[in-house]
Amino acid sequence: MEKRFFVDKSNISRENILLCSDEHLHLSKVMRLRVGDVVECFYDGSDVLTCRIDEINKNDTHLTILSTYPCDSNPAIDITLFQALPKLDKLELITQKICEIGATCIVPFTSRFCIAKDNASKIDRLNKIVISSAKQCGRTRLLDIHPTVTFNNMLDMLTPYDAVLFANEKEESVTLKELLLGKDYKNVAIIVGSEGGFSADEIEILKGKSMSFTFGKRILRCETAGIVAVANTLCLLG
Amino acid sequence: MEKRFFVDKSNISRENILLCSDEHLHLSKVMRLRVGDVVECFYDGSDVLTCRIDEINKNDTHLTILSTYPCDSNPAIDITLFQALPKLDKLELITQKICEIGATCIVPFTSRFCIAKDNASKIDRLNKIVISSAKQCGRTRLLDIHPTVTFNNMLDMLTPYDAVLFANEKEESVTLKELLLGKDYKNVAIIVGSEGGFSADEIEILKGKSMSFTFGKRILRCETAGIVAVANTLCLLG
Repeated sequence: MEKRFFVDKSNISRENILLCSDEHLHLSKVMRLRVGDVVECFYDGSDVLTCRIDEINKNDTHLTILSTYPCDSNPAIDITLFQALPKLDKLELITQKICEIGATCIVPFTSRFCIAKDNASKIDRLNKIVISSAKQCGRTRLLDIHPTVTFNNMLDMLTPYDAVLFANEKEESVTLKELLLGKDYKNVAIIVGSEGGFSADEIEILKGKSMSFTFGKRILRCETAGIVAVANTLCLLG
Repeated sequence: MEKRFFVDKSNISRENILLCSDEHLHLSKVMRLRVGDVVECFYDGSDVLTCRIDEINKNDTHLTILSTYPCDSNPAIDITLFQALPKLDKLELITQKICEIGATCIVPFTSRFCIAKDNASKIDRLNKIVISSAKQCGRTRLLDIHPTVTFNNMLDMLTPYDAVLFANEKEESVTLKELLLGKDYKNVAIIVGSEGGFSADEIEILKGKSMSFTFGKRILRCETAGIVAVANTLCLLG
């Protein structure tokens, strides 16, 4: 894979690309690329754009698109992780890892035992992590970071999915393998609790809306649960 | 699961347990437990020991074993991750996560493109992470941290395994699902590269000793690769 840079779609005009801020600095200061070098650019969901560097200024870089080719690293199955809000460092780790692994969306939601506070600055930080992960793993479609919703809003969002899977710590026997092997789901929701787990009431409600599964005999930390659930789902359906 | 503490086997005499240093502080200062409280203790590979706190001193805690029961959270399949040495923070993350998920051993090894330096202090730090992860996930058998070996030593260690799997970035089609589904392997080795990947020579040698697999169309960071490979292997064979 060539060196790859994320570009805001509004900074593309015909075959001309303007790279600013972080991505400009990454190209000019970190990678130390020069005028004439060929790199790859992308915007959310785009083809891969093969570009030549025309001009490197203090605050921006100008490039010309030479050719494009389709990105084959985008997820073939849509997986949305509904993640009860964990502490920020865990949410960052989950976001980074499930973007690489191949989820399409993360929806943080509040539940009774959540101890983390939601705050407005989070989405910007998470989006930077998503761009970096996308560059790393080769996908051009970004992981979509949904704003935090309530438990009840989350329930309303489950309707369109082919399969809704619930990492239920009270489930003793059914595994993801039993639920997914041989199935042809294209659009899967996975529900994972926060550090404090779910209340008994929440578990009853979730059981009525989903298929419960267990990871087996070991209790996973909440950030491990989300990462493993996405990885195993893609492995089994892929 | 009850509150659980790791005890050095040499600090158990008949039904008497002495808890020192970190575990003593965790019990007395963090969890603020009192004389008469009942907790669980374990040593590497032991049953779960149900214990009563008899005495809490400044530097140690005395307990009495009341009863024991078998631990059903220990791995049923032996998975060893042969991990080309990554930077320490990544090795720590891999160790924490594969202990929770259920690997039995990690063997760091040097390869041509490794940029991390090995150092003697590492195993102590990693062992603390392992104890904490084991307490969290409920296993009593610790993840075994092998000292770092050379690439050639690593090759010699592969002989006893039922299956040797190699996360080969040059492999284009064969997945873990194709290699493992329906198989009854009990003793699996997984080989994963460092940040810099393997040299062409190393890849040729590894191909001769293992089954290559791909994670699909996305390139995973080295720490993600080890975690996902262990999780998928347990999911498919479990």
